[in-house]
Amino acid sequence: MMQHDSHVLFTGTSGSRHHGRPGLSHNQTVSTGKDSVRIVPLGGTGNVTKNMFVYEYRYDGKLRDILIVDCGIGFPEPEMYGVDLIIPDIRYLEGKKDKIRGLVFTHGHDDHIGGIPYHFGKLGGMPMYATKLTAAFANLKLKEVGVKDRVRTVSYDDKVIAGPFRISFIRLTHSVPDTAHLVIETPVGIIYHGSDFKFDFTPLDGKLPEINKINHWGRRGILVMLTDCLGSERAGMTASEQVVGTTLEKELTHARGKFLFTTQSSNISRIQLAIELAFKFNRQVAFVGRSIDQNVEAAKQIGYMHFPAESIIRDRDLRRIPPHKQFLIVAGSQGQPYSAMTRIANDSHRFIRVREGDTVVFSADPIPGNEVNVNSLIEELYRRGARVSYSDIMEDLHVSGHGSQGDLMLLLSALGPRYVFPIGGTYRHLMQYKRISQELGFDPQRILVPEEGEVLEFRHGTRPRIAEHIELENVMVDGLGIGDVGTTVLRDRQTIAKEGIVVVVVPMEQSSGRVTAEPDIISRGFVYLKDSGEIIDGAKAVVARSIRLKKGKIVDWAFVRKRIEDNLASYLNKKTGRSPLIVPVIIEV
Amino acid sequence: MMQHDSHVLFTGTSGSRHHGRPGLSHNQTVSTGKDSVRIVPLGGTGNVTKNMFVYEYRYDGKLRDILIVDCGIGFPEPEMYGVDLIIPDIRYLEGKKDKIRGLVFTHGHDDHIGGIPYHFGKLGGMPMYATKLTAAFANLKLKEVGVKDRVRTVSYDDKVIAGPFRISFIRLTHSVPDTAHLVIETPVGIIYHGSDFKFDFTPLDGKLPEINKINHWGRRGILVMLTDCLGSERAGMTASEQVVGTTLEKELTHARGKFLFTTQSSNISRIQLAIELAFKFNRQVAFVGRSIDQNVEAAKQIGYMHFPAESIIRDRDLRRIPPHKQFLIVAGSQGQPYSAMTRIANDSHRFIRVREGDTVVFSADPIPGNEVNVNSLIEELYRRGARVSYSDIMEDLHVSGHGSQGDLMLLLSALGPRYVFPIGGTYRHLMQYKRISQELGFDPQRILVPEEGEVLEFRHGTRPRIAEHIELENVMVDGLGIGDVGTTVLRDRQTIAKEGIVVVVVPMEQSSGRVTAEPDIISRGFVYLKDSGEIIDGAKAVVARSIRLKKGKIVDWAFVRKRIEDNLASYLNKKTGRSPLIVPVIIEV
Repeated sequence: MMQHDSHVLFTGTSGSRHHGRPGLSHNQTVSTGKDSVRIVPLGGTGNVTKNMFVYEYRYDGKLRDILIVDCGIGFPEPEMYGVDLIIPDIRYLEGKKDKIRGLVFTHGHDDHIGGIPYHFGKLGGMPMYATKLTAAFANLKLKEVGVKDRVRTVSYDDKVIAGPFRISFIRLTHSVPDTAHLVIETPVGIIYHGSDFKFDFTPLDGKLPEINKINHWGRRGILVMLTDCLGSERAGMTASEQVVGTTLEKELTHARGKFLFTTQSSNISRIQLAIELAFKFNRQVAFVGRSIDQNVEAAKQIGYMHFPAESIIRDRDLRRIPPHKQFLIVAGSQGQPYSAMTRIANDSHRFIRVREGDTVVFSADPIPGNEVNVNSLIEELYRRGARVSYSDIMEDLHVSGHGSQGDLMLLLSALGPRYVFPIGGTYRHLMQYKRISQELGFDPQRILVPEEGEVLEFRHGTRPRIAEHIELENVMVDGLGIGDVGTTVLRDRQTIAKEGIVVVVVPMEQSSGRVTAEPDIISRGFVYLKDSGEIIDGAKAVVARSIRLKKGKIVDWAFVRKRIEDNLASYLNKKTGRSPLIVPVIIEV
Repeated sequence: MMQHDSHVLFTGTSGSRHHGRPGLSHNQTVSTGKDSVRIVPLGGTGNVTKNMFVYEYRYDGKLRDILIVDCGIGFPEPEMYGVDLIIPDIRYLEGKKDKIRGLVFTHGHDDHIGGIPYHFGKLGGMPMYATKLTAAFANLKLKEVGVKDRVRTVSYDDKVIAGPFRISFIRLTHSVPDTAHLVIETPVGIIYHGSDFKFDFTPLDGKLPEINKINHWGRRGILVMLTDCLGSERAGMTASEQVVGTTLEKELTHARGKFLFTTQSSNISRIQLAIELAFKFNRQVAFVGRSIDQNVEAAKQIGYMHFPAESIIRDRDLRRIPPHKQFLIVAGSQGQPYSAMTRIANDSHRFIRVREGDTVVFSADPIPGNEVNVNSLIEELYRRGARVSYSDIMEDLHVSGHGSQGDLMLLLSALGPRYVFPIGGTYRHLMQYKRISQELGFDPQRILVPEEGEVLEFRHGTRPRIAEHIELENVMVDGLGIGDVGTTVLRDRQTIAKEGIVVVVVPMEQSSGRVTAEPDIISRGFVYLKDSGEIIDGAKAVVARSIRLKKGKIVDWAFVRKRIEDNLASYLNKKTGRSPLIVPVIIEV
């Protein structure tokens, strides 16, 4: 499967003799002027998560080849009630399956790999590539839908050839090991895909960012650089992961009872560090929560984590160990509703109780949008009597995985691309990136900030242009349903959540078309009915009046329905100041 | 109305001859041992907002007199869908109206005064007192319910006598002028009510915190100190308001187009500062938004703001002025849905458009829970082309009104109370207060942290105890309704928001008790029905089966209803992974 002796991996036949242009080797960046490369951000722009980029090679305007980079999940906004997660909208790829030459993952975070189990089947089984740990994590995801080991492992010195795209890998540092930037050579020019990164020159795993390669490609000349910009609001350089160890050690020195440690489950270097410190302080380690278990297992299998199996204890066996000998590595640092940490905080975990004298350390900052969940988690843990440490009260318990202004400008300077397309941030981060790169002397005209759905096209010797607008929706996953919660369902949920629902049942005799009995009114989430007899009586009267429009038979039920809705809406709003969703139901009896 | 020559304000007869204990002056702190003072936190504990404290004087266990401090609103939690605001639950005061001797407001923030228009009528018209600006703001609130000028103004050297309570005022600094701490002398001991404050020794209005008074009362001996603890996670002292001016001036220097400035509408010192800077930079000022308008007007009337009326321009007249001559002071720094700033960001304000080259400055940090709203506000403003400044990218645009560890420990040291009851923070702040005061050498046993609903009782010569548990609910205001959205309605809203609602209508013949036609199924927020024929058909079959339990007449409808609910719930969950609210409706025809 893996060919580490060969440093070029082919994606099959289409790569080696494509375009019917014999003699033109795919790894030469010579353009005929007739061809173009497009960047289609399927995950949207101005997004931190849900990463998915489509690179297209076109000849004479006609689509020839597609390379996909990443396929991640997004997190629902607060008003997307009941939605578990969001995945990229891949309708654009419909009918283009046969053009997809490959998919490359940049690193093993859910917002870069988490969408693949949902979309793999629809993408036509293209070959997939990633560095070692990333491949292991992506394969874990695919396993859940019964797809086994389809993501192939590449080393940082491999090249992947996917049709006219020739992909090289550069090691960067981030909050998960084996993060890569991609250099994508195309006939039109060289693209640098620089997703999430920071420059950590003392990373925990000792594997340094490959600055030399960046310089090398910079000298070759980069047409466009895509770059992480999430940290563009922070001055200086982001601190090294090393500082976490020092802080954690201090915390352990003071700890008396159980010690609970939580961080991103994918940050296996930090978890390895925590394990080593636990041993140093003579504590036994337990992994608590499925995501930690799985990731540690996967990382151990490929030799990325090292610890003697016998020093790990199962959570059910913890009661045999005195509290001051316990070190628990717990999943759920973002306060996810069903995570181990949330269950522990609510005192509803099967095996673990937090009590006076225990210590809980959050080695993670809330992701924007999760502040409320994380805060209430911290509150609950305090209430159990724990000493809780988190970055608001203790510096250096967590460092970001994203580069700050210093890191970002270092990449920009080292690479010197012609154009820059900042990604992985919201609009404010894009604008801030523009501001700081301008201070560095970079021409702001060359910072590309396409709007949602805009497709950038690059051609030899001309300025990039917006070639197309595509429509992108949030594909929402709710329970078992994928995409069946759309805007209508969501809008109803929002209205009902804020205002309640009022259902009016009007019984109609099928044969005569006459209303046969008094209409019934049912409400939920509106007012407490038992205390609101007056309102309901009034509402019934309003409905009765709305029906009594024509004597005898009602012909135009749609009209009556509308009348009921309008009259009732105005009555209820006057009485309560609210605008519930009104649903008239004409039932034939 | 105000008696500034007399420095003692009496609340009426009950104060001067109370308790039937002739000869015992109410302002002597001599206890017979039979009397006690209770603190009832009606706004709950572990809360930042919704402040309302009831002090009770009891003799032989019998309630004699009540003093109320503050009556504020709280803000709904994210899952309190549709709720506008929360007010204190004052059921505890039912039947005790005649014992209420007075109400004192500490400062003019909504979470201290905003509840009074809702509760004033039920509290029996007790006399109310506050310092000048606080009284003006509280009277503004009361005016909206038709109550005029009922809050009397006191000076910092006045004393208020409310039954056995003798109240002195100490000037403190905060993010609104005229903030006071209260010294409440009682027969059992002296209570220090130290709500929201910081020590700003260079406040914008030049009115310094009265440290000398604090020292004076410290020497007299304080039984219990209630103290703000919200800033207990921050090291050092909170910065002075002065720093905001320096930063704002820098921003103005760079500004080319319109300049929009937003801060808390009650922070009139900072607004005054902004106005002066606007003039310095030759810009005309417009106030945008009702809360700014009202507060500025009230502050101006009492001489707390100074500016020539002719330099103020109405928002509708702004179009006559070139952008670089405009300085807009805009309400809505927290991203409140209907505020002026939100409308401007959405480009839906009647008179104001933000365009490329304009500057927007946020001189406020998001209140916990508002992060998402504020972030999307910033996003939108960037999208309009504005240069946006906020504390994430620019230090010292805002300073907190709450003291940090240094401020808090300074108060504790200067006062040296016997007991401390930290207020105005969530549990984590209370615990953090405990931690830092312990480092200062304060006995943690003397930090009182009552749970929600616990009533503290103080008696001469004994340790305080929990005298009573009272039940406190969130009284929710939604539209015109006060308290009519209770837990049932809210729970329904939450279920429907996340899972949707399914209404099953079963027509039944009244005379025979037989089901006369096929049941109908209506859903909202569940699945998009038009695409889900299969599920609905299946659901109808399940309902039909649930009804077909007994042949012919159904007697026990409650049982059938339950059967429909259970069977349908399990069917729908199997099909969709969701658990919608199921509402069976038996309609008699």
